[in-house]
Amino acid sequence: MRPSSEERERLAAVAGRIISRIEELMRASGIGGEAVLVGSAARGTWLSGDHDLDVFIGVPEGSSLLPALEVARLVAPRFEERYAEHAYVHALFEGFEVDIVPCYLVEDASEIISAVDRTPFHSRYVSARIRGLEDEVLLLKQFMKGVGVYGSELRVGGFSGYLAELLVIRYGSFVGVLEGSSLWRPGEVVDLEDHSSRSHGDPLVVVDPVDPGRNVAAALTLDRMFAFAAASRLFLREPSPEFFFPPDLPPLPDEELREALAERRSTLILLEFAAPDLVEDVVFPQLRKAEQSVRALLERGGFYLLRSDADWHRAVPVRDDGAEGPGPSDDVGVLRILIELEVALLPRVERRVGPPAWEAEHAKRFVASHPAPLSGPYIEGGRVVVEVARKFLRAEDLLRSQVAGLSLGRHLGPSLRRGYKIYVGQEILEVRDPEFRIFIARYFLAREKVG
Amino acid sequence: MRPSSEERERLAAVAGRIISRIEELMRASGIGGEAVLVGSAARGTWLSGDHDLDVFIGVPEGSSLLPALEVARLVAPRFEERYAEHAYVHALFEGFEVDIVPCYLVEDASEIISAVDRTPFHSRYVSARIRGLEDEVLLLKQFMKGVGVYGSELRVGGFSGYLAELLVIRYGSFVGVLEGSSLWRPGEVVDLEDHSSRSHGDPLVVVDPVDPGRNVAAALTLDRMFAFAAASRLFLREPSPEFFFPPDLPPLPDEELREALAERRSTLILLEFAAPDLVEDVVFPQLRKAEQSVRALLERGGFYLLRSDADWHRAVPVRDDGAEGPGPSDDVGVLRILIELEVALLPRVERRVGPPAWEAEHAKRFVASHPAPLSGPYIEGGRVVVEVARKFLRAEDLLRSQVAGLSLGRHLGPSLRRGYKIYVGQEILEVRDPEFRIFIARYFLAREKVG
Repeated sequence: MRPSSEERERLAAVAGRIISRIEELMRASGIGGEAVLVGSAARGTWLSGDHDLDVFIGVPEGSSLLPALEVARLVAPRFEERYAEHAYVHALFEGFEVDIVPCYLVEDASEIISAVDRTPFHSRYVSARIRGLEDEVLLLKQFMKGVGVYGSELRVGGFSGYLAELLVIRYGSFVGVLEGSSLWRPGEVVDLEDHSSRSHGDPLVVVDPVDPGRNVAAALTLDRMFAFAAASRLFLREPSPEFFFPPDLPPLPDEELREALAERRSTLILLEFAAPDLVEDVVFPQLRKAEQSVRALLERGGFYLLRSDADWHRAVPVRDDGAEGPGPSDDVGVLRILIELEVALLPRVERRVGPPAWEAEHAKRFVASHPAPLSGPYIEGGRVVVEVARKFLRAEDLLRSQVAGLSLGRHLGPSLRRGYKIYVGQEILEVRDPEFRIFIARYFLAREKVG
Repeated sequence: MRPSSEERERLAAVAGRIISRIEELMRASGIGGEAVLVGSAARGTWLSGDHDLDVFIGVPEGSSLLPALEVARLVAPRFEERYAEHAYVHALFEGFEVDIVPCYLVEDASEIISAVDRTPFHSRYVSARIRGLEDEVLLLKQFMKGVGVYGSELRVGGFSGYLAELLVIRYGSFVGVLEGSSLWRPGEVVDLEDHSSRSHGDPLVVVDPVDPGRNVAAALTLDRMFAFAAASRLFLREPSPEFFFPPDLPPLPDEELREALAERRSTLILLEFAAPDLVEDVVFPQLRKAEQSVRALLERGGFYLLRSDADWHRAVPVRDDGAEGPGPSDDVGVLRILIELEVALLPRVERRVGPPAWEAEHAKRFVASHPAPLSGPYIEGGRVVVEVARKFLRAEDLLRSQVAGLSLGRHLGPSLRRGYKIYVGQEILEVRDPEFRIFIARYFLAREKVG
């Protein structure tokens, strides 16, 4: 996980050449300002193999960012433009992936115009305090990676690299962070500069040392926070290299998938449709929303859920049926929502609990709207109750009938309506995509470092 | 429902002869006090066919009730002793059933020694106010009977005769009571003497006009209260004789029972065991408790319930299997608990939600107590969750395994442990007892006058 000295030297050399190249281009274009290397590469806290370089082009407040973007486009011949809050360039420079990001140079981090303007402040804050603690940061990042909580992207909902660095600064060492987090409770506040200016409802609040109103841990979910805290406790008691380097889960072969289904005897339903051609941080919130919509539909229908998960699989899956289904026809891949039901088959009779019996008008309307119940109306717990014939007895029938009308997010709805496929129970064996087989292996295991 | 004039005259004559006989015996024994006819017979508010006479022997405070009980035993050759708060005699006198109840004559109803001492006060209070309203009381009682809310015994949880009389006094007429009750809400208070001395948590509070601390409607359940109020509203809108005289439900024949099971497709489980030789008001609370214990067992086991009911069937049932089961071997009859399940078969995998992940000691113990889960441990909603193999997948297996250990009430527990029988689904067809077939017909219909 710790980069070798050659790796370090090579990265430093490449970074130096990029900065020189950009400064040269800025002079040629007559742009004021400066180019700075930021992020983990700038402070020796990157994990071996993560070859991402972040270079920011800072221009004076009040000027335009466009000339800086023009410069970014000229750094390397192979590049693409990407968008976060505003445009930046993702380029390939001597085999390294480099993000070149125009931003404003502001006096104080609380006066930033765009979120990226804050990054140079972070870089300066950490650089000034991290000397000698680089290895502690590396250990922490690898530990977080190993227990599945590293990354602030919405797919993960975990800890960002900057957050890991701040925690090392706060607690003094890798083990210090583990000990500190062992005692965390929801609503925990870490305020390095003791300058917090507002309260947050987040599970963990790490006040940004360069901007008192911001929570660095805002993207961290409650479950990832305590997956980390629980793993910390367990590691301190029973340390093992597995925390840093968990064994890879191989794709689940047919036989084991069959065994897992037989062992659980629950009902699995898999919904599959083509992914839209958008970045992860746009797709994932919609995918989680779609998963919740499907869950809510089934629960409204009276079915009982056990667990669910969703993921984006980019590899082109190998399928038996070839033409059928949405067809992962391009390399954008497919979205998959897996729902595990405790009860997927319900009796025909269904209880409908109505208004309190003393609300005369409501009660009358409720009874009138169920003119031929199987049982009732009767009064139970003070409420009017009828028992009627249920429409959908099987969860899959309800899903097939209603899924196209669900609220699935702005881009996922149209995508699903162009085509989807539903697999029930043993039919899931038809999905041979190795990425899916790893996903379902992880779903069945669902083992976190808790103990 | 209104007694004929011959019926009235005959009752009055018999009542007169009983009183004379008792007074004669009291004189012969040298007992002071008086014999009074109380209850509906005394005030012309009894329903035709209800031939119950209540005669109270009042003795001065401070004396013993035993000589009065001796007298009661001598009134008729055919009698048995019964017990409420203390002993009384139930005798057969010229074809009429008579309760002869010793009580104390006290100055004020709030100074009573036993509940029966209050009855003469009730009788005097109502007699002085009910003249001319007798037919209104009869209509109200028959209406209450017809809609299934008449009777304050625990089996019914409805309105007593005295309560019906007080409501007629309060609202002026039968229709007045229906109109009044149409507007009732939970916690309704009716206080004829405006002298309530304490608050009650009961759904309906009718302050006893002879005892300000007592709620005459204490035995009325919320559901019976609003079954009456809802029927009242419906009757005022669409009156029909059916409210007073609902059609009898005949025993459900095999074919219709089969149809009902096919129409509902739920799972019915019937638990049957011998009733103890005790009065209804002792047995019924225990039977309800047993019903709740069985429900709670199945819910703890993860099964989902739809509805349940319980009853005491006294007729000797005709059964196919003869010797098997508890055998309704004597005329005490059997107790039956009917449970209808929405879900009676569960998957093998079972979710166990543990403590919050930040409660380190609890979390550790929870994980240690599930050493080989099917999935997990993982953290969801901040809690530690494991998925383990369930022990009982079928509700009937759980019930058979655990029913003998359940808390079923003081007398029912031993009775059940001497022998019970469980019928599941179609097996219920084996139960041919006409009383059960009427009970299950009513269970399936479950129709109250609500609209």
